Amino acid sequence: MSENSNRYKIHFLPNDKIVEVNEGSTVLDAAHSANIYINSICGGDGICGKCKVILSSGTVDAPTTKLLSKEEVDKDYIIACEAGITSELQILIPHETRLEGKKILLDQNEQHSMTWKAILGRAGFKHDALVKKICLKLEPPTMDDNIADHERLYQAIMMKQSVELNVMQTGYSILKKLPEVLRQEDWTVTVTLGHRGKILEIIDVQPGDTSNTNYGVAIDVGTTTVVACLLEMETSKVVDSEAVYNTQMKFGEDYIQRIIYAIQNDALDEMQRSIVTDINNLISTLVKRNSIILDDITAIVSAGNTAMHHFLLGLDPERIRKEPYIPTANFIPPIRAIQIGIDINSRGLLYTLPSVSAYVGADITSGAAAIRLDKEEMPTLLIDIGTNGEVVLGNKEWMVCCSASAGPAFEGSGIKHGMRAAKGAIEIMHITKEFEVSYSAIGDIPPRGICGSGLLDCIAEMLRSGIIDRSGNFQKGIKTDRLRKRDDEYEFVLVSKEDTGIDNEIVITQADIANLIRSKGAIYAAVSLLIESMGLGINDVHCVYLAGGFGNYLNVRNAITIGMLPDMPSSRIKFVGNTSLTGAKMALLSEDAFETVQSIASQMTYFDLMGNRKYMEEFMSANFLPHTNLDEFPSVLEELSSLNNQFSGTN
Amino acid sequence: MSENSNRYKIHFLPNDKIVEVNEGSTVLDAAHSANIYINSICGGDGICGKCKVILSSGTVDAPTTKLLSKEEVDKDYIIACEAGITSELQILIPHETRLEGKKILLDQNEQHSMTWKAILGRAGFKHDALVKKICLKLEPPTMDDNIADHERLYQAIMMKQSVELNVMQTGYSILKKLPEVLRQEDWTVTVTLGHRGKILEIIDVQPGDTSNTNYGVAIDVGTTTVVACLLEMETSKVVDSEAVYNTQMKFGEDYIQRIIYAIQNDALDEMQRSIVTDINNLISTLVKRNSIILDDITAIVSAGNTAMHHFLLGLDPERIRKEPYIPTANFIPPIRAIQIGIDINSRGLLYTLPSVSAYVGADITSGAAAIRLDKEEMPTLLIDIGTNGEVVLGNKEWMVCCSASAGPAFEGSGIKHGMRAAKGAIEIMHITKEFEVSYSAIGDIPPRGICGSGLLDCIAEMLRSGIIDRSGNFQKGIKTDRLRKRDDEYEFVLVSKEDTGIDNEIVITQADIANLIRSKGAIYAAVSLLIESMGLGINDVHCVYLAGGFGNYLNVRNAITIGMLPDMPSSRIKFVGNTSLTGAKMALLSEDAFETVQSIASQMTYFDLMGNRKYMEEFMSANFLPHTNLDEFPSVLEELSSLNNQFSGTN
Repeated sequence: MSENSNRYKIHFLPNDKIVEVNEGSTVLDAAHSANIYINSICGGDGICGKCKVILSSGTVDAPTTKLLSKEEVDKDYIIACEAGITSELQILIPHETRLEGKKILLDQNEQHSMTWKAILGRAGFKHDALVKKICLKLEPPTMDDNIADHERLYQAIMMKQSVELNVMQTGYSILKKLPEVLRQEDWTVTVTLGHRGKILEIIDVQPGDTSNTNYGVAIDVGTTTVVACLLEMETSKVVDSEAVYNTQMKFGEDYIQRIIYAIQNDALDEMQRSIVTDINNLISTLVKRNSIILDDITAIVSAGNTAMHHFLLGLDPERIRKEPYIPTANFIPPIRAIQIGIDINSRGLLYTLPSVSAYVGADITSGAAAIRLDKEEMPTLLIDIGTNGEVVLGNKEWMVCCSASAGPAFEGSGIKHGMRAAKGAIEIMHITKEFEVSYSAIGDIPPRGICGSGLLDCIAEMLRSGIIDRSGNFQKGIKTDRLRKRDDEYEFVLVSKEDTGIDNEIVITQADIANLIRSKGAIYAAVSLLIESMGLGINDVHCVYLAGGFGNYLNVRNAITIGMLPDMPSSRIKFVGNTSLTGAKMALLSEDAFETVQSIASQMTYFDLMGNRKYMEEFMSANFLPHTNLDEFPSVLEELSSLNNQFSGTN
Repeated sequence: MSENSNRYKIHFLPNDKIVEVNEGSTVLDAAHSANIYINSICGGDGICGKCKVILSSGTVDAPTTKLLSKEEVDKDYIIACEAGITSELQILIPHETRLEGKKILLDQNEQHSMTWKAILGRAGFKHDALVKKICLKLEPPTMDDNIADHERLYQAIMMKQSVELNVMQTGYSILKKLPEVLRQEDWTVTVTLGHRGKILEIIDVQPGDTSNTNYGVAIDVGTTTVVACLLEMETSKVVDSEAVYNTQMKFGEDYIQRIIYAIQNDALDEMQRSIVTDINNLISTLVKRNSIILDDITAIVSAGNTAMHHFLLGLDPERIRKEPYIPTANFIPPIRAIQIGIDINSRGLLYTLPSVSAYVGADITSGAAAIRLDKEEMPTLLIDIGTNGEVVLGNKEWMVCCSASAGPAFEGSGIKHGMRAAKGAIEIMHITKEFEVSYSAIGDIPPRGICGSGLLDCIAEMLRSGIIDRSGNFQKGIKTDRLRKRDDEYEFVLVSKEDTGIDNEIVITQADIANLIRSKGAIYAAVSLLIESMGLGINDVHCVYLAGGFGNYLNVRNAITIGMLPDMPSSRIKFVGNTSLTGAKMALLSEDAFETVQSIASQMTYFDLMGNRKYMEEFMSANFLPHTNLDEFPSVLEELSSLNNQFSGTN
């Protein structure tokens, strides 16, 4: 960049933020420096076309592009990552391009104030928070009872907690202030005790009884969203939750892109700060909204995939993406949150849940613990569909797992009108035989896109109504104006422009369908491979837990119909939502649950699918609706045969 | 202090140091700010007279004093703490007033390079250093063996050390650098492992094999002297030792004075820095002299009395001197040395050995472990005579202890020509019937004073030769010029001026004798009380270990003759030197020994003697030579009866 290049003011609407940037910067760069998060799946490579914005005034230097329709070009849409700034600009960010943190849909559990004690109990975990506060009334010393302050405290803890002296440890700073604290409220003190492996550490000692102000935060550090849940440790009450988009998205949509960015730009520190800032902002919001103080947050439990945990802790992620795919650590000991800049009690602990491998992370081990896979008698599946698709098969005796490169299609990425399960997302969709579309959008507002469950419904319904064939191709002969050709590609109009909230139609394209089929195929292939690897058949699988950010409603039958899940009675398939966060909450409230995650992580056997020939075969077979081999989907065959004639014979 | 007061230059000889101080400061203040350590037992209260210096030029404002003889006044001696500065001065510090750090006598064990492995073995301790370095050659990861770097390291450690995974812990900074270090020397690394209670912590990971460069430092933090001993952890070799006077002496000669100083002047931080600086200087000397680097020192074990450990760690010592005498902590968990400013490996650990009470410190528990009191079948005594006199009675089943306010007379304090066991100290003395004195001084140089063993000989020999009676009073009738009256007090000339190295005679005064008798009486009373408290008699005591800084030679028979030790065959009394340091060395080299000190500390029952009526009675009875009750000293009665007539009947 030339030192004497011109600087221009860029005014973003509707945010009403102004930044000044150098000539030649892109509009996407400008948005980043204004801290406006906009969709950008390809990370600024000019491929995905998600970052389209409207140029209200000024001029940019932008190449002609196929990413914009003629109509969009007429409306002054530009691709933000390709538009070089050559003057002052006013930029309007349309609805569909915005990432609006405040509107991320939280898990059902977060929306209702549930008794977590009951949930823990149902899962068979004992309530015993990782960090707890206990109030002690000590006997003042006398000439006949003149043990030292520190040992007096230990004795009282031992009496109350029945722990052994030799597993306790006290930090130096606590020792220094101990005599004064003990005497301040006449020998009544509250001790904060934290589990650190085999050790019970005195994290803090406060005068008087403060045992009713002990909070923890469970965090799900997703590639796309970061969710934080504030819990009251003693009562196990879920106090509040909050979510934001992961601001690391500006470094790349998926974590492989981010690792490359980190290495090429020596940006690991910057990327760590980015995710830490997200977490600090979440906590800060929770703290303010609930009138508590940071000092009373004594623990954080974090679940997330292996790469995200590496970014969070600033551990070298380079080898995660290079054969033989070696993380720096799967098991990370608890550290003080402040060591990585997370602002809670200065001696509060950050517990990072363990991962299994580079591609099966703590989100999965946490989820497996949340559904108590380790207690199942019969082989049971856990399928978590997020940026990737991870599959675990196991029971109380064994567990195998793998990661399918499913891609984030069901998170809305790579889908023209795909979006996450946020306000305005179509989460339920129905298509009649006459090709009429009805839907329900989150928040009951005009729809702005389609989230995972809606996309899944869409494919299933299009198959049922004969809009697409078993390969996912549009049946060109159907009689409806909704099917049309635009810019050389067929697309189906789901919602007309006047009904949407984005000044545009909502469509699904041929490429979208291919994407979704590849995605569901990758998952089903992984399921098949794991089942076969254990010498089992699909009928041996007792139950399937489906996790992920689909939204709050998932039509399990539709997941079978498109061949994402194995053909079994719907009653044996449970949609369990964000189990990564659920597991983190359980671990925070129960040392028992925390230990269970550890033992699950050390017990799981990881299968690497990359370059696995059998997996490739399974994947090819699964690239149909529901599958090449219809024998694996008898109930789907029966259902669809009655509806249209493409199922009269096998493919 | 007035802001516009005059400033004067003070020139100290023979140090040749010049400082500028305000008018009205004392000469002692000036010496302190010049960092010249001079004797000052009373801490500047104008009582002890130890800080006498010679005023070579200039004028001071000093009161007349009985602390100086007429002869001394004629030679321009002044009392430094009483002399207010009113002009520029030249001050000569005479030999007897100097504290010369470099000449502190080290324990015999330090002087010879002994095989500590053998010493450990003899004590029954397994060699297993508190912090050790092990070299590991890891298998590089492959697609079939793709566990994470951190877990690969753990597996290798487990294989080599047969420790369990769940007792290991890794610091965050180690995790961060791990991938690079592992690959730097092709998967050969050296791991530094430190015991932290139940946890084995990875303190460092270095590329290649550095396992042969692992050092530890054992420290005895005495009130008067600080001794450091450098050990090679793997070979158990004592590499080198060094000692300095504790510079905290400028805050008070004994630790009670220092606690008062700390509280009154809010000087705890300053006093902590003072002792930490001493230790850093010792380590720095050892490191330079032996061409090793600080980074290779991975552990320190410190023994010392309770107050000194409080000062070292900056823990509030206030309640140590106030009823009911409560330390902040007896058991202090290991901390990183750098946390208190000790400069070794930045993650190296400081292990502070545990104390029992305010007045029975880690020097005693360390000593009890060193002599393996915990293995004795029969009741055994450990008596440690330093600034105080601590007594432990016990065996493998029980231990009781107490602290006698013996005062530091046997360390030379409060004795006109007393000094520590340094170069020029008379350590052996013999007095003939004709009152002729022969002696041996440390370093074979003209004597400058008398150390503990010499003082003990002196009292015993004066008693034998009839110079003093059983009350310690000079027998005025004896025929020798050596006995004389000076400044209203009787004194006995031990060495004439021309034979000393201090331009003065060496004498022992009536007050000195009274001091030494009180001191030995306090110890014997404590011994008696402990024995009686257990329902035992002196004959039940199987063995006595006498520890302390007496020097290298101690005439055990003389200790019995004056009634400091119980009357038993000399073969059952062992002089064991600085057991505090010995125990610290053992703990450093053997986790087993470290644990033994811990269990001894938690097992010992402490008897408080202050205000104990029975103790006062015992003390009064012991204020004779050897004792009021001669029945307790049959062999002494027999010996002395043959020499002079005062023992013909009982008192």
